[in-house]
Amino acid sequence: MARENVIGRANVEDTPELNAYYEQLAEYEAGALWTVANDIEPWFPAPKSVPTLWRYKELRPLVVRSSELVSPENSGRRVVMLLNPGRHDVSASVGLLYSGLQIVQPGESTSAHKHMASALRFIMEGQGAYTVVDGERMKLGARDFVITPNGTWHDHGHEGTEGPCIWQDGLDIPLVNALDANFYAVHPEIRQQAKTQGTTYSTYAGGTLLPTQNKWDRPYSPLLHFPWGPSYDALQRQAKVSDGSPFDGIIMEYVNPLTGKSVMPTMGAHLQMLRPGEATRAHRHTGSVMYNVAKGHGYSIIGGKRFDWEEKDIFCVPSWAWHEHVNLSSSEDAVLFSFNDFPAINSLAFYAEEAYPDNGGHQPQPA
Amino acid sequence: MARENVIGRANVEDTPELNAYYEQLAEYEAGALWTVANDIEPWFPAPKSVPTLWRYKELRPLVVRSSELVSPENSGRRVVMLLNPGRHDVSASVGLLYSGLQIVQPGESTSAHKHMASALRFIMEGQGAYTVVDGERMKLGARDFVITPNGTWHDHGHEGTEGPCIWQDGLDIPLVNALDANFYAVHPEIRQQAKTQGTTYSTYAGGTLLPTQNKWDRPYSPLLHFPWGPSYDALQRQAKVSDGSPFDGIIMEYVNPLTGKSVMPTMGAHLQMLRPGEATRAHRHTGSVMYNVAKGHGYSIIGGKRFDWEEKDIFCVPSWAWHEHVNLSSSEDAVLFSFNDFPAINSLAFYAEEAYPDNGGHQPQPA
Amino acid sequence: MARENVIGRANVEDTPELNAYYEQLAEYEAGALWTVANDIEPWFPAPKSVPTLWRYKELRPLVVRSSELVSPENSGRRVVMLLNPGRHDVSASVGLLYSGLQIVQPGESTSAHKHMASALRFIMEGQGAYTVVDGERMKLGARDFVITPNGTWHDHGHEGTEGPCIWQDGLDIPLVNALDANFYAVHPEIRQQAKTQGTTYSTYAGGTLLPTQNKWDRPYSPLLHFPWGPSYDALQRQAKVSDGSPFDGIIMEYVNPLTGKSVMPTMGAHLQMLRPGEATRAHRHTGSVMYNVAKGHGYSIIGGKRFDWEEKDIFCVPSWAWHEHVNLSSSEDAVLFSFNDFPAINSLAFYAEEAYPDNGGHQPQPA
Amino acid sequence: MARENVIGRANVEDTPELNAYYEQLAEYEAGALWTVANDIEPWFPAPKSVPTLWRYKELRPLVVRSSELVSPENSGRRVVMLLNPGRHDVSASVGLLYSGLQIVQPGESTSAHKHMASALRFIMEGQGAYTVVDGERMKLGARDFVITPNGTWHDHGHEGTEGPCIWQDGLDIPLVNALDANFYAVHPEIRQQAKTQGTTYSTYAGGTLLPTQNKWDRPYSPLLHFPWGPSYDALQRQAKVSDGSPFDGIIMEYVNPLTGKSVMPTMGAHLQMLRPGEATRAHRHTGSVMYNVAKGHGYSIIGGKRFDWEEKDIFCVPSWAWHEHVNLSSSEDAVLFSFNDFPAINSLAFYAEEAYPDNGGHQPQPA
Repeated sequence: MARENVIGRANVEDTPELNAYYEQLAEYEAGALWTVANDIEPWFPAPKSVPTLWRYKELRPLVVRSSELVSPENSGRRVVMLLNPGRHDVSASVGLLYSGLQIVQPGESTSAHKHMASALRFIMEGQGAYTVVDGERMKLGARDFVITPNGTWHDHGHEGTEGPCIWQDGLDIPLVNALDANFYAVHPEIRQQAKTQGTTYSTYAGGTLLPTQNKWDRPYSPLLHFPWGPSYDALQRQAKVSDGSPFDGIIMEYVNPLTGKSVMPTMGAHLQMLRPGEATRAHRHTGSVMYNVAKGHGYSIIGGKRFDWEEKDIFCVPSWAWHEHVNLSSSEDAVLFSFNDFPAINSLAFYAEEAYPDNGGHQPQPA
Repeated sequence: MARENVIGRANVEDTPELNAYYEQLAEYEAGALWTVANDIEPWFPAPKSVPTLWRYKELRPLVVRSSELVSPENSGRRVVMLLNPGRHDVSASVGLLYSGLQIVQPGESTSAHKHMASALRFIMEGQGAYTVVDGERMKLGARDFVITPNGTWHDHGHEGTEGPCIWQDGLDIPLVNALDANFYAVHPEIRQQAKTQGTTYSTYAGGTLLPTQNKWDRPYSPLLHFPWGPSYDALQRQAKVSDGSPFDGIIMEYVNPLTGKSVMPTMGAHLQMLRPGEATRAHRHTGSVMYNVAKGHGYSIIGGKRFDWEEKDIFCVPSWAWHEHVNLSSSEDAVLFSFNDFPAINSLAFYAEEAYPDNGGHQPQPA
Repeated sequence: MARENVIGRANVEDTPELNAYYEQLAEYEAGALWTVANDIEPWFPAPKSVPTLWRYKELRPLVVRSSELVSPENSGRRVVMLLNPGRHDVSASVGLLYSGLQIVQPGESTSAHKHMASALRFIMEGQGAYTVVDGERMKLGARDFVITPNGTWHDHGHEGTEGPCIWQDGLDIPLVNALDANFYAVHPEIRQQAKTQGTTYSTYAGGTLLPTQNKWDRPYSPLLHFPWGPSYDALQRQAKVSDGSPFDGIIMEYVNPLTGKSVMPTMGAHLQMLRPGEATRAHRHTGSVMYNVAKGHGYSIIGGKRFDWEEKDIFCVPSWAWHEHVNLSSSEDAVLFSFNDFPAINSLAFYAEEAYPDNGGHQPQPA
Repeated sequence: MARENVIGRANVEDTPELNAYYEQLAEYEAGALWTVANDIEPWFPAPKSVPTLWRYKELRPLVVRSSELVSPENSGRRVVMLLNPGRHDVSASVGLLYSGLQIVQPGESTSAHKHMASALRFIMEGQGAYTVVDGERMKLGARDFVITPNGTWHDHGHEGTEGPCIWQDGLDIPLVNALDANFYAVHPEIRQQAKTQGTTYSTYAGGTLLPTQNKWDRPYSPLLHFPWGPSYDALQRQAKVSDGSPFDGIIMEYVNPLTGKSVMPTMGAHLQMLRPGEATRAHRHTGSVMYNVAKGHGYSIIGGKRFDWEEKDIFCVPSWAWHEHVNLSSSEDAVLFSFNDFPAINSLAFYAEEAYPDNGGHQPQPA
């Protein structure tokens, strides 16, 4: 029991009488709030997640190895999960976000399923992979961003011939489970019949012109595929006309073109550019973020600790952890893809943010 | 007084006694509803506007002539209005929409003003023109679509050297006046200082990625400029994956990328492609539309009358008039730009639509 | 042609050459903007409507007389219209709002119809009247407010025995017509079968508890009837805890309980209390308002002119006219019911407002 | 590791080679998805929470006893928590909802604090209690419902003289903690100065008339207090005109009068009436619910198990548990107050529901 000698906080000493009382309460499925109050109502967020970096050069061999050890059929999905040291209990990478590296070898494909959990993917290497979402087939290129929103049938495959395709999966599985709302179903025909190809992109990617017959009524983006080329172009165009954010450089969100808002109701995704030599200032906010280094090299200071990263490395920033980013190249930009639980945080009115107040906005340089 | 011998309609015969009564009412700023009821509550919309086509080859010399007769300074704006024969009273082209052809000669510019009315422009010829809207400067190319929403300071100019720039203006002046809400102001410095150039396009035209720092709170699109190239591309992409509308071919709306909805609260704009040989079916709906032939040639049957059109011709479809379009080329697409009052019609819950029920969906071919 | 010698305004002198040019334009359904620009783009709203007051003691005999002269059957609706001197062209009372006094005698009823126009009523005298809206029957008491939104079938009747029922109708007929969107239909069975009675009130009038099964998807309030008692109670409760508005005293809007917003998309309605001796400050805004004195006596200064009113008098405030209200009783409150086109004004982003800047916020006292 | 021999599910046998691989993964903060996939992606929700009933006659003495054992000062809040047997880990009563019974004795008061967690209270007994929320003081009567939304300063007290006040608290503490977003602060002056009393009720409780000057921009209801009288009246009025829900009888939601939607973004609350003898049909849905018997006696079958209840008993229905309710009185209605996490479930698009398909909609009668 955490006692605090502050007005408004629980500060009750254990006594034999109280202990007897507690036992009595327990008989009736009850307890005394003051025995846990200071723990469950912390002064500020106290995540179990810790800042963590996963190096691609370390993980890649293990991911490749998985394809020698298990088949897509047996494994359901052949994925190496990224497990936050503090969140093994819920198989989360940070907060209530799950992430993993999925590998598909040439000629392989996975069976179709759907779930209440929403999924997103950032393609890390390989060409020839495709995904089918509710009958819409999409070819996946390196650094493309693709979503499979909750309740959509999806299966993947690789029809190329040269080397595996590897992508990072992001799902809100721990969040859905936390709210006791997960469902899972397998497709009656094992693999979907693709009815269309590239349709959502051809329909919605103009962004500034939308079809008038559109009758979309689902809570997620009808545009499922955000190829790297136009996305990086948008970032570069924006860099020419904006100073960006002091905390994030040039940062843009992948949006649902029908609403201008996050692509899915539980998870959002961003692309951000750190200009050559840029060192952002530190801030912290509620909400958890997983980063994937799409381009460049540098480091981030997260919760006072330095994490050096290079292309394809993955790292996380837990809720309310101070963080700042540095591009170590003086000539090339660095680009970070990230996904987060901000849409959930915002819907629930849990958002809070603050800038690092001291030292010109920078955390003390770690030793 | 229009009498109708139908239950639920006014059917009162004039009598000396009633006429005396009507005179008495008039003394007290009153009248008898039944004397006007059938007129003011028609069975279906009875617009004063009539279908009209304006031929560019006829109008262009007159527009050019205006620049010999008056200066931009004296005229405020040097514009040849398109006047619907039925709407001279409110200087409207159709319904409560105003439209005109504005000409700017090389080296000329206009003074800056703003008004409660919203404006949009479709560039018809010339290069070298620019517009400045609330400090944002935009270069205008042929067939570009650009908006100057209500309350924004705007001025235009032409810094090219070869020939005039001519564009079609569209404003909701008659609508604003109908609601007694127009305001007008001239800029204190005659011409605005341009602070940025191409910023809104560079920021928002990605469409599928938006800046996260965005705090836009105005009721119109922050993207002001929709260049022809990407707009036509979007139309072509859409044509590959959609059958389009039976009434309009491949039709898309220019949208506010922050909302996926119309660019301004009173007027919307569309771009539509009639594929080679395409003849759409007829329908009618509430709301008024002005068309500008961006590309191709063909004809439309509007209210039973045929209007042949070629590139740069302008025509209107009044509310509730049957209309259908035909592309007379068997090899080239035809593209119609159009603007309308649909956002107002929809906000006020006035929308109604129906398909032409007979003859395979086509009006009788006019003689 | 209104010329103004101001930069940014049209200031073109007639010349024989120009007159010839204007004639030429007219041949092609065209005109020169600068000949009308200053008129159609005024510096501030220039309504044709003028402030007007209709005295009930003058109108009532004429209203009663109408029931001797025409039958409900022949007249469609037996209504004495309130005609603004400046708006006879569109049969409006102010702006694009129509209003009239409808009388139903004991035993009479009207046939059922519907129209695109929305209607509202404020009951002025009599008991025993009812209205049926889409099958829902409502008993109407004095000072009740009731709506028949656009597209709803409605008919009325009087099943009392003592004296006529008279109410004020308010409709957006001129607005619907201005946008060429009016439709009218008579009910196939002349009078509707009432399916329910008082249901909408029993369901929604709690306001703070709503049925969970509710699947309402129409753009207007499902609550159609706002009886005087609870409405006046709400006003009195509010008066105890609020200083109200400097321009309007204690003012509340009748709202759609599902949205907290205006009851219909084109018209709103307010109830406001002027406390004993209260004299509000003057302001002006876009949007037109019709007032009905529900209780008390006093006067309003509108556009610099004083209008004395007593219970059941009706008056209007045109768009952008300065107005302020005075309760002449030192002991009793005065209550004004009013309806307006604010929902339309707001949807179209036409709202503007300003406080009277001089003289402590009061217009010069009229002679 | 849960293996399932179904296409699309993980079905990988442990081997020495794989176990070695798993150890290797663990070194890099990684794991194999297929070892947990079937657990974290269940076929349908698998809550740890179990249906539980808390009897007031058993708990009340323990609650009263707490006021002899600890002071409000030492305990922070003197509350007996209701702990779901399956959710001791997060101090939840069901799902991610916390609940407890708080007692305040005559003359006592609590210090003011605020937190990111939202709170609601249902008053169970006593008179003389008050709560102050952001300076607004409210007197609490039996069966009143009151909210203290997230971020609002609140403190409570009891200025009566006869016996304690006891209420049920409901908070989303486990949800806020699950998303690592909790904050806590104590008021600088220990107890707030009440600035107003009954203002929110006097302003918003009309429900159908709202103040026009309202500029509320927070994500929760400005109406904080829903007294029992008008709430029960609304339920009774609704019962006269509606058959209600087959699963819930006459059920209404406490709403934000500005939006017609839930009072807070994370938790909603309902009041429902089971008419004399009513036995509802069973259904299940995602989302967790805590019930408090406001009136009457009966039983509920939850997940196949019968829970008999009488006035002031509390019980929970975990997500996706079948449940149906029975009023055992043949002459009196029974009323259940309940609160839930539906607003969160809906914002995140996690809602699912189904009716019990067999046996006329009823679960097998428990032995």
